[in-house]
Amino acid sequence: MNLQREQMLKNIIRLHNLGALVFWRPDELVITCGYFPLWGLSFLVCTENDEPVLFVPELEPEDILPENVKVKKFPWGLMDCANPWEILINLIKETLTEKNVQHLPVSFIKSIGGTAPCMMSGEQPPLPADLVDRLSSLTEGGFKDATQDLLNLYVYKTEADVQCLYRTHRIAAIAVDTFYENLKPGISEAELAGLIEYAVHRMIGSDGIYFSKAWPMILSGRNAAAGGKYNRSTGKKLQPGEMVMLEMAICVNGYWADITRTGQTGELSEQQKKIFNLVLEAQQKAITMMKPGVLMADIDAVARKHIKDAGLGAYFNHALGHHVGFRYHDMGPSLSPDSAGVLKEGMLLTVEPGIYGEEIGCGVRIEDNILITKDGFEMLSDYPRLLTNKEI
Amino acid sequence: MNLQREQMLKNIIRLHNLGALVFWRPDELVITCGYFPLWGLSFLVCTENDEPVLFVPELEPEDILPENVKVKKFPWGLMDCANPWEILINLIKETLTEKNVQHLPVSFIKSIGGTAPCMMSGEQPPLPADLVDRLSSLTEGGFKDATQDLLNLYVYKTEADVQCLYRTHRIAAIAVDTFYENLKPGISEAELAGLIEYAVHRMIGSDGIYFSKAWPMILSGRNAAAGGKYNRSTGKKLQPGEMVMLEMAICVNGYWADITRTGQTGELSEQQKKIFNLVLEAQQKAITMMKPGVLMADIDAVARKHIKDAGLGAYFNHALGHHVGFRYHDMGPSLSPDSAGVLKEGMLLTVEPGIYGEEIGCGVRIEDNILITKDGFEMLSDYPRLLTNKEI
Repeated sequence: MNLQREQMLKNIIRLHNLGALVFWRPDELVITCGYFPLWGLSFLVCTENDEPVLFVPELEPEDILPENVKVKKFPWGLMDCANPWEILINLIKETLTEKNVQHLPVSFIKSIGGTAPCMMSGEQPPLPADLVDRLSSLTEGGFKDATQDLLNLYVYKTEADVQCLYRTHRIAAIAVDTFYENLKPGISEAELAGLIEYAVHRMIGSDGIYFSKAWPMILSGRNAAAGGKYNRSTGKKLQPGEMVMLEMAICVNGYWADITRTGQTGELSEQQKKIFNLVLEAQQKAITMMKPGVLMADIDAVARKHIKDAGLGAYFNHALGHHVGFRYHDMGPSLSPDSAGVLKEGMLLTVEPGIYGEEIGCGVRIEDNILITKDGFEMLSDYPRLLTNKEI
Repeated sequence: MNLQREQMLKNIIRLHNLGALVFWRPDELVITCGYFPLWGLSFLVCTENDEPVLFVPELEPEDILPENVKVKKFPWGLMDCANPWEILINLIKETLTEKNVQHLPVSFIKSIGGTAPCMMSGEQPPLPADLVDRLSSLTEGGFKDATQDLLNLYVYKTEADVQCLYRTHRIAAIAVDTFYENLKPGISEAELAGLIEYAVHRMIGSDGIYFSKAWPMILSGRNAAAGGKYNRSTGKKLQPGEMVMLEMAICVNGYWADITRTGQTGELSEQQKKIFNLVLEAQQKAITMMKPGVLMADIDAVARKHIKDAGLGAYFNHALGHHVGFRYHDMGPSLSPDSAGVLKEGMLLTVEPGIYGEEIGCGVRIEDNILITKDGFEMLSDYPRLLTNKEI
């Protein structure tokens, strides 16, 4: 557990006079101690005065467990154990009594939308249906709401988080290269997506990586023109002279990036080239403004104005950006017209203007991940933004 | 929506005197109308006398929507809509009033563990935190519990489901071939897994497939010997003479299979060959017994006895099998020592004995998916069960 984050957690505990905070969702465990669970069945219990205790199922691999936390196991997944959750809850209660906080309330995020999957993303974790009720009665103090302070943990990346996010973005560079290298007429959207998945998955084992997975979506021609509407790869084959978008979630050891590139399979029309450059200019204008203190709505406005001034405002039909890093879309105020958010050091945001329309024969989005630094910004995804693979 | 399933839903509505049933989890939508959502934000409302109504976000692709249901859109994902969920709830209320069931209670599954991901498995759907409360007050009749009857929907596959499951298993055959073809010393677990993912993903567009994704886990040598404990691929490279397990979830258009094969990279020891054959025999003995009316515990017992009689009972440390098809692990009684379940026509179950142990130098599991027919069984995953790629 890193010191910056530990301090934030202790502040929340003190502010609300809590006995403990409990975390279990994959993104919460990454935020609190940089740990991305395999089964999604691990529980971190933080108290004010001691090191946190992490309760993990017997089947959790030891090499991915975080440092500086005490680990206790519970018998989930063993054939001869009929009630692992009863055992877990009793273990947590005992721990809270040992720490002498059994009279104080506990807090956790009761329910949020869109959490990150665990390592085994083919199935959501089999948590008990009455989990929230069970956790609410861990102590005599019951449950106390601290939701807003807990959600605020998402919008700030610590120095330790940033090191992990650098690594995610190194892997994303490989994905982007694979996209441009295979951007040729005849390949299907799904096949190109599959090649990118493969290039990312095989990086496990290098650079301290125990999990590396991309969810690339390739949208070509009419599918790109439909913009973010249909976020998927189909069996459609790339045709000559089509615009092709790569929209990609990528996760390395629990840290996420969200990248879009737009390319082209062959000859460019003047219109396509013009619109591509317009999107790129809008993006660069917005990014250049980014530093602590700037209003998020103002950044959105600059990109939006650039596109509107070219007469294409109606074709930019989504927000300019969102927080990212602990999941594909982190919570928090977005870069959008009505946002009340203000940039602060340690925020990581996507900047992703787009122009889409069948009638203009175009689907272009360019998306990068921008870290707000002490006095400006750092682009974590400074990969090629090209139109064709011939430019490589 | 297929007629067999529609009849089951109407029976539940009548039995509990309900106004409507509501479904939204990806596996629930596959069960009820064979529809696998992209965003995971679609809601099916079934009443007794009319065709079901499916509420989908504006951004849901039309070509994946099911037939024989009425579709209504709600404005989730549009930038100028601040409160799509308010609009959705009002739309459902209006529909229930039109159908004149606004005085009757509604029912749905409030909370279950381990649901399937939606097509975009890199993020769980951003459902509102108070969803259950909102749905509970759709009508004056409030919420009425019918959980057990709703969960029972999972254990029975209709004829229409079986046709879709055949297709999933045709794609799984490609995955198994890819596993054996690349089973060579020097390749890493993650690289082999990535090749399988690619081979499965590229099948989108053929055979009516709009979604095709595998979650393969390759476990070799000491990782295979740890059995199901660590369900993941690492950077470890395959060594000569190691046993290698492929454990795989695979989903095609929302229908799932769960397959395991065990192979070998080079020369076999007599011990390894003996244990491999023991597992295979245990599996085949169990499968041969399967037909309607047989106790699930009895099937588990036969496989377990075969392994125990060889003195290796302690190394088979999990249940023999579970329901599968609507997700990686469907709910319902399992093939296990204490199971009270009885086989019935239309059930789809895995049969997956295994023997694992560092001290016996082995990790072997062989897992197939078995459909219970009117008077016996049908194996949906009759792919090679080989030890080395030289046998192909």
